[in-house]
Amino acid sequence: MQFELTSELVDSLREAIDHKDSSFVKEQLKDLYAPDIASIINQLDLQEAAFIYELLDEDTAPNVLLELEDDTREDLLATFSSKRIADQINNMDSDDAADVISELPEDIQEEVLSHIDDIDQASDIAELITYGEGTAGSLMAKELVSVYSFESVTQCIEEIRKQAEDVDVLYAVYVLDSGDRLIGMLSLKKLIISNPMARVEEIYEPDIHLVKTSASTEEVAEYMQKYDLVVLPVVDEEGKLLGRITIDDVMDVIKESTDENIQRMSGISDDVDSNDRLWPLSKARIPWLLVGLCGGIVGSRIIGSYEDQIRIHPEMAYFIPLIGAMGGNVGVQCSAIVVQGLANNTLLGDNIGPKLIKELGVGLINGLICSGLIWAYAFLIEDWQLAATVSAALLTVILCASFLGTFVPMTMNRFKINPALATGPFVTTLNDVIGITIYFLMGRFLYSFF
Amino acid sequence: MQFELTSELVDSLREAIDHKDSSFVKEQLKDLYAPDIASIINQLDLQEAAFIYELLDEDTAPNVLLELEDDTREDLLATFSSKRIADQINNMDSDDAADVISELPEDIQEEVLSHIDDIDQASDIAELITYGEGTAGSLMAKELVSVYSFESVTQCIEEIRKQAEDVDVLYAVYVLDSGDRLIGMLSLKKLIISNPMARVEEIYEPDIHLVKTSASTEEVAEYMQKYDLVVLPVVDEEGKLLGRITIDDVMDVIKESTDENIQRMSGISDDVDSNDRLWPLSKARIPWLLVGLCGGIVGSRIIGSYEDQIRIHPEMAYFIPLIGAMGGNVGVQCSAIVVQGLANNTLLGDNIGPKLIKELGVGLINGLICSGLIWAYAFLIEDWQLAATVSAALLTVILCASFLGTFVPMTMNRFKINPALATGPFVTTLNDVIGITIYFLMGRFLYSFF
Repeated sequence: MQFELTSELVDSLREAIDHKDSSFVKEQLKDLYAPDIASIINQLDLQEAAFIYELLDEDTAPNVLLELEDDTREDLLATFSSKRIADQINNMDSDDAADVISELPEDIQEEVLSHIDDIDQASDIAELITYGEGTAGSLMAKELVSVYSFESVTQCIEEIRKQAEDVDVLYAVYVLDSGDRLIGMLSLKKLIISNPMARVEEIYEPDIHLVKTSASTEEVAEYMQKYDLVVLPVVDEEGKLLGRITIDDVMDVIKESTDENIQRMSGISDDVDSNDRLWPLSKARIPWLLVGLCGGIVGSRIIGSYEDQIRIHPEMAYFIPLIGAMGGNVGVQCSAIVVQGLANNTLLGDNIGPKLIKELGVGLINGLICSGLIWAYAFLIEDWQLAATVSAALLTVILCASFLGTFVPMTMNRFKINPALATGPFVTTLNDVIGITIYFLMGRFLYSFF
Repeated sequence: MQFELTSELVDSLREAIDHKDSSFVKEQLKDLYAPDIASIINQLDLQEAAFIYELLDEDTAPNVLLELEDDTREDLLATFSSKRIADQINNMDSDDAADVISELPEDIQEEVLSHIDDIDQASDIAELITYGEGTAGSLMAKELVSVYSFESVTQCIEEIRKQAEDVDVLYAVYVLDSGDRLIGMLSLKKLIISNPMARVEEIYEPDIHLVKTSASTEEVAEYMQKYDLVVLPVVDEEGKLLGRITIDDVMDVIKESTDENIQRMSGISDDVDSNDRLWPLSKARIPWLLVGLCGGIVGSRIIGSYEDQIRIHPEMAYFIPLIGAMGGNVGVQCSAIVVQGLANNTLLGDNIGPKLIKELGVGLINGLICSGLIWAYAFLIEDWQLAATVSAALLTVILCASFLGTFVPMTMNRFKINPALATGPFVTTLNDVIGITIYFLMGRFLYSFF
């Protein structure tokens, strides 16, 4: 039953589009949901995408539009007139409509708004696009049902009948005092099972979660996740109810921020995806490659300063990659655990000391295992000075990497910098350079000593 | 308003517990929600945790229990009698109760079940723990409201009154045919605004999403996320309604699987968190460190076979870390993009060719930039042969890493192996070894040629 996107399906649709075979395309799409159709369109070029979009019925088309990747949607909308864009967003939820409009160039935003038939919808959208990106205000929708605390259950149901037409998804109604301030909520279940004569003030739930428009989307996401909320009301500074945020919008936020963290950890700086073109993909990766390049050059200078030693003991060079790689691996392991602990609130950000001690403990155990193994190997294959140098350097490098891999992200977190930034190439490069330095210092010391 | 966990708060509670100061502890916790109290208890040792748990009122305690980290909960429950565990889970939702029970040793599970007063609850739990871990069955709760299609809206509301007592969160009722098979649903909103005389069959929504008990939790998560569902009914092979999965449970699944992927990418093999003890933390990291160690040893053999060359041209050794690090970085960047594209369904898994060509294109651009820069550097500081060797090797290594970083995860995905496994130490180690080989091969060739 689950739809699966295959290149076979995409290819067959491409061919049909090539031959302007509308009926084949319609037949293929007719049983699919909007997100599935969108995932197909994301794979196509603009002309093909426009061809398919033309064939969608007017209920499906706006939903597909919403599910498209940002780039694809932007390209597609650029081919539409302002009137046509307005038609597409006329029946969308206000938050979705605001999202679509805010992606448009500013001069077109005005034009599109002027073409929206429903005046309430137009003014809701106009309000929503004023909230800054990344705030609760930018996530909320205006569609909700509210009642006054002095109303009766019967009046309340009447109110829902009137207000609920535009509200697709409704789990609860919000309860306001006479000053329009949010004071609680009433679940539909409670409403259904209550005495029709009861007053709202006798049955509503006053202890509810809410946020202000200025809260960050990350706060909203953390909040809804932590307290298992499917909808969260948004109020202004005076406590007046302005809108509500639903869990599906928050899940998108969570997904984006996870994706971004994984990209940061992997040394990719802009938000790119695999359908982007060559240059954006390259550009997003160059900064951390240049950091790596600088690290490599610093490494080369360090090794260069030990040239004499390498001439006498070229076997010192053999283990350079090992030292670098192990430092990098340990650093990434530590910082990943730290970043995750901070994100999940299982690790207290202001508690660096105990965490450092623990990670150094782990580093000591793993360092002893690894350096023991490498000592045995180098002793058997090479000589005992080299074995001593490599194993002592490896242990030191692992301890150093444990320290940096813990200290750097925790410190970044304290200064409100995203610690995921530290988990990738940065820690790796730093550990590479420090590892090489330790290795050659130890080598010089041990070889000169014995 | 948002609760923040600080080490100051934890320390003050610890001190109060030390002095058996119950009233201070109660005062600190009284305005907190269950997840916040749980996050505090997670930071404490077992005796302290037990002290706090004793002080919680009987409504709060089970909710706190559910929000605890698995290890903490397990330790705490191990100090409870079977009767006391039964008391704690008696009023939980059936899915939560089943989760708690299934973590207990098998002999205790039976005992606990026998102590549960509510017979329906006991049999629901007994059913739920039979579903395999990682299946939709293990995620679902038995609490739901169902009606027959031939009932009227009034009968339906009566049914909700009767059934809904145990159902905390209710957005919709499920509609069954006379054979108890699920045929659709009816939102509470629709129910409220419909004519009380209408029959369910005239107003219900027949086109609904559902899953079978055997579906995997990942499928459920993908499904609910894609189609923006807050609740998903679960049926057996005959289509009979067995339970429902709510979005909060799925969000936990998504979080766990993201956490796991990040750990895989960082070279951590078991599911650990920063509160675990030393040995589990060490053990989870050792496997990939050993892979790195083996890679390093292979690298040392390769370099060793060029010993003569290093004696004559020790400057060859300078750039070993650079070559290794850049190969690793590029490989991780590529594979992260691929893994993300596969996870988000923006990249077609059966379409390796075009993706490879694109990534090689990106690799060529970034490779030319990086090797151009390193050529200029080495030419100015060292000599032109070394400059030629390093820059040509770097370009080749970056192209190779682009190839492997794309090919390896895509191939793993085809063989249904989690591609995130390939994104970390594996690709890095492979690229390290290949990079060094290319570097010295090129060096030998260029130095012997000129």
